[in-house]
Amino acid sequence: MDKVKVIEIKKSVFEDNNREADGLRAELKSRGVFLLNLMSSPGSGKTTTLISLINRLKGKLRIAVMEADIDSDVDAVKIKESTGIESIQLHTGGMCHLDAGMTRQGLDNLPLDGFDLVILENVGNLVCPAEFDTGSCTNAMILSVPEGDDKPLKYPLMFSVCDTVIVNKTDVLPYFTFDLDRCRKNVLARNPKAEIFPVCALSGEGIDALAEHILKMVKDWKEN
Amino acid sequence: MDKVKVIEIKKSVFEDNNREADGLRAELKSRGVFLLNLMSSPGSGKTTTLISLINRLKGKLRIAVMEADIDSDVDAVKIKESTGIESIQLHTGGMCHLDAGMTRQGLDNLPLDGFDLVILENVGNLVCPAEFDTGSCTNAMILSVPEGDDKPLKYPLMFSVCDTVIVNKTDVLPYFTFDLDRCRKNVLARNPKAEIFPVCALSGEGIDALAEHILKMVKDWKEN
Repeated sequence: MDKVKVIEIKKSVFEDNNREADGLRAELKSRGVFLLNLMSSPGSGKTTTLISLINRLKGKLRIAVMEADIDSDVDAVKIKESTGIESIQLHTGGMCHLDAGMTRQGLDNLPLDGFDLVILENVGNLVCPAEFDTGSCTNAMILSVPEGDDKPLKYPLMFSVCDTVIVNKTDVLPYFTFDLDRCRKNVLARNPKAEIFPVCALSGEGIDALAEHILKMVKDWKEN
Repeated sequence: MDKVKVIEIKKSVFEDNNREADGLRAELKSRGVFLLNLMSSPGSGKTTTLISLINRLKGKLRIAVMEADIDSDVDAVKIKESTGIESIQLHTGGMCHLDAGMTRQGLDNLPLDGFDLVILENVGNLVCPAEFDTGSCTNAMILSVPEGDDKPLKYPLMFSVCDTVIVNKTDVLPYFTFDLDRCRKNVLARNPKAEIFPVCALSGEGIDALAEHILKMVKDWKEN
């Protein structure tokens, strides 16, 4: 197994996370690094989606991944082995989310000037990560079909802070009572600006459109 | 639709949650009410499993359910409509877990002396609820097949505090790379005492064994 760098994240000392997040965003802007914060429930397929996505984007963008987990480094190792890109593991020591100060601790371990896009895979949790601005340039989330199309009703904040919603595991739609139209309606009720991408990370279906969307976001951001 | 009582839970004022939890447990013991705390990821099938379970147990035990959610009362209404038992909704106002003080606020809204078993459906989250003792007599959790058999490696605390692990959605085992033996090994590595129940809440498969297990827990607890 390839070894990856494992960073033990410490609790942030900042009282005003929103200010820290704005500061980090401004710094990233000046260095030309687009930070994407990816959130979801445990087991929705974040790592598999990232691998599929990165393999489509890595010829066009210089990408790094920060994998946040309470424990283990299996995700960072998997990303590195499957895509060859720079991947580091952030251990949160039991903490249920990342804030801007914790995100910065991760970024401090990357040679930032070498990257166009850094993807932060947040802790698997639909509640707490939505409450803390990480300093990212955009928030995305994955809702997997087996979780159900009612999740935007139950976890409103998560869906209201994400402008990109990836609906993963579409291959198992026949086996669940998940309705894509109802899902779309529930998502848009929380955030009318949200763009929704049905994908099957395992087969790669839908990943091209998602890759195009991310490429466009990064380009638009760099030009503005 | 049947209306259910909706309780807006306030943040606890207690500094020492473990002491509060022990106090609540002692009080429940003296009143003969067994409190089961059920945890899981969003969308693992907690409500569907409860309905199937309660319909098997309600002739043998007097049961009430407290459904904790950040928002909405769909789960409490569904439980009441599908089982006829007493069901109340706890709104956590964005909070990601329940502690003993918050659990007590819910219990204060039930005529406790009328029940043998109260089931608390905790907020859908594999991280924070595991950190707070609710005062329950036992902790159970649901891991659904689509989430993956590696979850005990990534969410160690949750699996170490639960003596009952329900593996739900076994009907979709053919469509996922979930291995029941590997899951069992991962769960037992976190908690050697854990008892594991594969079920399909939708079809009812495996629910009889789970109902027997809960009935036995309640009886043993009442007799000791």
